[in-house]
Amino acid sequence: MERILAKWESLSASSVILRFLDINLRSIGQVMFQNNPITGILFLIAIAWGSYAAGVPQVAVAGVLAVIVSNLTAQWLHVDLESLHSGLCGFNGILVGLALATFLSAGPLLWVYVVLGATVSVVVMLATTNVAKPWGSALTFPFVLTTWLLLLATYGFSGLAGTALPSGNVVTAFQPYQASPLQLIDVAQGIFQSISQVFLKASAIAALVLLAGLAVSSLAAAAFALGGSILAVLTAHLFGAESDLITGGLLGFSPVLTAIALGTVFYQPSWRVVVYTAVATVFTVIAQSALNVALTPFAIPALTAPFVLVTWLFLLPRQCLEEAPAVVRDIEKPPAAT
Amino acid sequence: MERILAKWESLSASSVILRFLDINLRSIGQVMFQNNPITGILFLIAIAWGSYAAGVPQVAVAGVLAVIVSNLTAQWLHVDLESLHSGLCGFNGILVGLALATFLSAGPLLWVYVVLGATVSVVVMLATTNVAKPWGSALTFPFVLTTWLLLLATYGFSGLAGTALPSGNVVTAFQPYQASPLQLIDVAQGIFQSISQVFLKASAIAALVLLAGLAVSSLAAAAFALGGSILAVLTAHLFGAESDLITGGLLGFSPVLTAIALGTVFYQPSWRVVVYTAVATVFTVIAQSALNVALTPFAIPALTAPFVLVTWLFLLPRQCLEEAPAVVRDIEKPPAAT
Amino acid sequence: MERILAKWESLSASSVILRFLDINLRSIGQVMFQNNPITGILFLIAIAWGSYAAGVPQVAVAGVLAVIVSNLTAQWLHVDLESLHSGLCGFNGILVGLALATFLSAGPLLWVYVVLGATVSVVVMLATTNVAKPWGSALTFPFVLTTWLLLLATYGFSGLAGTALPSGNVVTAFQPYQASPLQLIDVAQGIFQSISQVFLKASAIAALVLLAGLAVSSLAAAAFALGGSILAVLTAHLFGAESDLITGGLLGFSPVLTAIALGTVFYQPSWRVVVYTAVATVFTVIAQSALNVALTPFAIPALTAPFVLVTWLFLLPRQCLEEAPAVVRDIEKPPAAT
Repeated sequence: MERILAKWESLSASSVILRFLDINLRSIGQVMFQNNPITGILFLIAIAWGSYAAGVPQVAVAGVLAVIVSNLTAQWLHVDLESLHSGLCGFNGILVGLALATFLSAGPLLWVYVVLGATVSVVVMLATTNVAKPWGSALTFPFVLTTWLLLLATYGFSGLAGTALPSGNVVTAFQPYQASPLQLIDVAQGIFQSISQVFLKASAIAALVLLAGLAVSSLAAAAFALGGSILAVLTAHLFGAESDLITGGLLGFSPVLTAIALGTVFYQPSWRVVVYTAVATVFTVIAQSALNVALTPFAIPALTAPFVLVTWLFLLPRQCLEEAPAVVRDIEKPPAAT
Repeated sequence: MERILAKWESLSASSVILRFLDINLRSIGQVMFQNNPITGILFLIAIAWGSYAAGVPQVAVAGVLAVIVSNLTAQWLHVDLESLHSGLCGFNGILVGLALATFLSAGPLLWVYVVLGATVSVVVMLATTNVAKPWGSALTFPFVLTTWLLLLATYGFSGLAGTALPSGNVVTAFQPYQASPLQLIDVAQGIFQSISQVFLKASAIAALVLLAGLAVSSLAAAAFALGGSILAVLTAHLFGAESDLITGGLLGFSPVLTAIALGTVFYQPSWRVVVYTAVATVFTVIAQSALNVALTPFAIPALTAPFVLVTWLFLLPRQCLEEAPAVVRDIEKPPAAT
Repeated sequence: MERILAKWESLSASSVILRFLDINLRSIGQVMFQNNPITGILFLIAIAWGSYAAGVPQVAVAGVLAVIVSNLTAQWLHVDLESLHSGLCGFNGILVGLALATFLSAGPLLWVYVVLGATVSVVVMLATTNVAKPWGSALTFPFVLTTWLLLLATYGFSGLAGTALPSGNVVTAFQPYQASPLQLIDVAQGIFQSISQVFLKASAIAALVLLAGLAVSSLAAAAFALGGSILAVLTAHLFGAESDLITGGLLGFSPVLTAIALGTVFYQPSWRVVVYTAVATVFTVIAQSALNVALTPFAIPALTAPFVLVTWLFLLPRQCLEEAPAVVRDIEKPPAAT
């Protein structure tokens, strides 16, 4: 694996086109914090399969278009080469593209929206990085903010219509309509779909390909993704969350990202970090349910906002967790290529 | 008083158990900015009486459990000893415990919630302190954020039910159903309950014990608490707020905290500071009414968010108020024990 | 023009009263970033005409009262003289006054509200400046925050009633009730009213006077205001926004401010800056529609929040746009008088 990557790196260095391909693959890998083009290829396969299986191939196309537009925008903005080459300028863009094509009806204006959103996501990425530098990195906040604004705006535009947006309502308590004893098969489905929902897909096959992509780059990341997902599904079930949300992975994708980020990216591994990450993962389930409720009147989805909020909160008290100072992942000093 | 405190301090220094008791008492005192164990005892009596009188003894139990869990969490996180010993790591926790037990039905999951909330409140406290360091301190923001998320999440959980949560609605203007000439007795009730509502209690007796607890530590704090409460009740009445809210102390508890914080904790006393604090106290009434309205669609209470917002806004322009630089109260450099 | 301004400056330096008049005129000019008393006079004429033509003369009176109160407050707070003399302490105040008198019914409490809002807007201005210093300036955030709180609070007060506030509702998609082919005359009306709506007026005459006021101080500012307005109206029409909102200028006033700010105030002119400003201006239309939607449940207007949000986001990545470091406009170092 190391030798393939070294070979690929020397090829990329010799060709502008291969370098740009490399940047876009690493951008896709960075959605789950992996600066690795092979991970990017596997993630792309998972996205393509998930879109194809769900009968919405335009979602994968929008994601690819968005990541390319994002990286072109970053080049036009003269972003420092190290950040650009690590894929840190494109991972929010691909999520914007996937989300817009998932939640809005197809049509010419959708593509205008995808290009605009991908462009703006880079500006928001640079802005957020400058603000969040003292304690960590932008995470997927640029994706969340840009997509929320674009989705909210459609309610005032007749040219763009939601196809899968929640309907606006005031907040009322969830009424469980039946006793719902979760079967083991449902638990397994919830665990896998929590992983695939990071890319807005409900597919166990996509989840397995994503786990393979993680494992290629970092076994620890794959383990924390799976462990975080299991913990999230059990927590949601303990508190009596709606079964469909649990099995659909809709309460677990943010906790999965929290577990990977805190457990393997920002802190040095130790037992204290494992316990700390577990508390954060459980609280991300609370935050996901809370934001689902809080966004009810606005008729938009929470996206990965719960992950961003909880991870930022648990990154800020760095001084309490770091025996040796950890490497900060920010846009000025991205992690070196694996 | 000084001699009793000195004696107690030397006792605490000699015993791990007494030190931990001391920390928890100071944490309770810090809800109103008093780093004083005797204040903590009096506040605890007020809480116990208020809970007992209202027929909800589990509220006081939840508060005590939460403050203990918070301080154990802080120790596990290796928070610096000076902050820990001053009670700065526990005052948000006790408020989380009191609020969860006040707004949610009793049951096993409530206690899971109290422990989780108390634990997370320490992380949020450390996070907020790091962000707010340039201009002041975390205040009760960790309590507000943690409790809001936990309460919002219950609308998506069948295992936890609200017992005293407001019902969600769109915003409409308050319709005064009758001319409501406020009697002197109502004004007095509003003034006292504004003080006891800092601990989520509607009890004039609790308010008197709280004032005693303040006076033991700082006569100025007791005076600003009472003065802030009077000003808040008169302001709310001037603008025509709902009488039940005024007499129940529900528009006055945030202004009371603003008055103590700006008038006696963060700025050196002077006539300019008194005027500045009065403007801030009046504006906290506006902010309380505004947040009550803004949270209507979310069906959660404003808690002390108006106090945090207005006090932060009035702390940021420090350079205009400080002849001599005031002592900043933050988690790195807590005020010395009185 | 230069000679008149120099003469006026020496007169102002010799008289406390003329200096105070000068400060208030510059404050009015600063709403559109012009530190120029002649611009202030022309803007004041536009405000007066717009209020008179709409039959609400008290709006102009409230604006003038508010700017005076703001500058008196700033003097009482010992704000540094350079900021005070540049009008940076009063431009949020005049907007608070205009907005309160526009959205609330006249009455004695309205004037209490105007004075309170103008006073607090200075504190919020100083607070925001301290927070936003690393990347830019406070913009009109103090106006937005102060006015939102004051307007929201009225729903809980029987003493103050909204006269032109939107009604609260859950979010639903805008239903275009007819094909609305925008006539050229409508487009022109939309373009001019987008400019006059910066001062909450729907008047083409006021817009022309405002453009004259800009041109007197900076031809570039006038050009970017007009260009931004045209781009905003076309963008809104492309996405199928409601015709009445477009022609009333209600989707264009924030983009106009974004265009002036990014194109002429904070960045050095270049082709890259023009393109960057155009993207920001288009995205401000999205943000305006998004915030109009997001504020629907709260029954308050978006004011210039979309301008503040997008301009801050596009100011933060300064390092990518600045060949030579631009002059930062903040309250410590305001731009020198033109």
